[in-house]
Amino acid sequence: MIQVRFAGLGGQGILLMGEILGEAAVIEKKYVGQASSYGAEARGSACKSDVVISDSWIDYPEVTEADVLACMSQGTYEQNKTKVNASSGVIFFDSQMVKPDPASPLKHMPVPATEKALTELGNRMVANMVLLGAVVKALNLVTEESLRQALTSRVPTSLLKLNIKALALGVELGRKREI
Amino acid sequence: MIQVRFAGLGGQGILLMGEILGEAAVIEKKYVGQASSYGAEARGSACKSDVVISDSWIDYPEVTEADVLACMSQGTYEQNKTKVNASSGVIFFDSQMVKPDPASPLKHMPVPATEKALTELGNRMVANMVLLGAVVKALNLVTEESLRQALTSRVPTSLLKLNIKALALGVELGRKREI
Repeated sequence: MIQVRFAGLGGQGILLMGEILGEAAVIEKKYVGQASSYGAEARGSACKSDVVISDSWIDYPEVTEADVLACMSQGTYEQNKTKVNASSGVIFFDSQMVKPDPASPLKHMPVPATEKALTELGNRMVANMVLLGAVVKALNLVTEESLRQALTSRVPTSLLKLNIKALALGVELGRKREI
Repeated sequence: MIQVRFAGLGGQGILLMGEILGEAAVIEKKYVGQASSYGAEARGSACKSDVVISDSWIDYPEVTEADVLACMSQGTYEQNKTKVNASSGVIFFDSQMVKPDPASPLKHMPVPATEKALTELGNRMVANMVLLGAVVKALNLVTEESLRQALTSRVPTSLLKLNIKALALGVELGRKREI
């Protein structure tokens, strides 16, 4: 069983990251529990999306201690860094959005998600998919093919190409950081 | 605060019901917590999607006692009927898929979701949207306009018209059963 938490601000596409990872895991015949909390984007409120992947049915998908935290805002980084497994956990963070705590003993992985989305794709809206690709590849959570399949069933056709490119960019970043 | 549980089998679109209600509530400036559990569709496994709607931030969205249960399969009806608030709760069920327990003291609302999806739209895949429309309208959870907006951002363009029709069918059924 692995517990993954995505966190960031409303509008960054945090929920979508969780939904796509969950759907990709189901394509690979796993059981999934998901829990998310969110509010109006206009409030710039924090939001989180937890995904628990397991070989058996999950009744209550609350992440008790995250194995993985993937973070896209400073505030949610501060809120959630203490909820990560102290011995084996790992924190991925968008290096343009989060300044990590130098005193934290946890394994930290910077991912230039927003930067790459802007410079290579000209659209910061897909930074979430860059970060998702990097996390999934670095930890080998599901295959790239399952991710892409989940994305296809989830994203409007007009935005699909852009999202697939962003995912591939992230996978490339993750490949260099495989754990 | 209101706690809604959608339950049924993999492939019936149960998760989508929760996601669309959640998104519609956020459009109306509410805070939302969602929790879902699911497995591979091919296994025909049960799945559930809980939505908690509130005026303030929800940290852990576990439905402790549902105010509303909307059910699309017999097995998940049996599993969940005891999780509904005994005094004020209400159970909506797809009348082609669920035979309700005549001994249950709870308020039951039959909705011919699969039947209407088949006879009026020729596609049982959108029974979920018929049921969602009926529940939302009967309880006045969010406006039809917010639901439609959430649907538009969520469903592929090629299926949008069909889903909007299904939702409208459901709203019509719900209007006759307003609580």
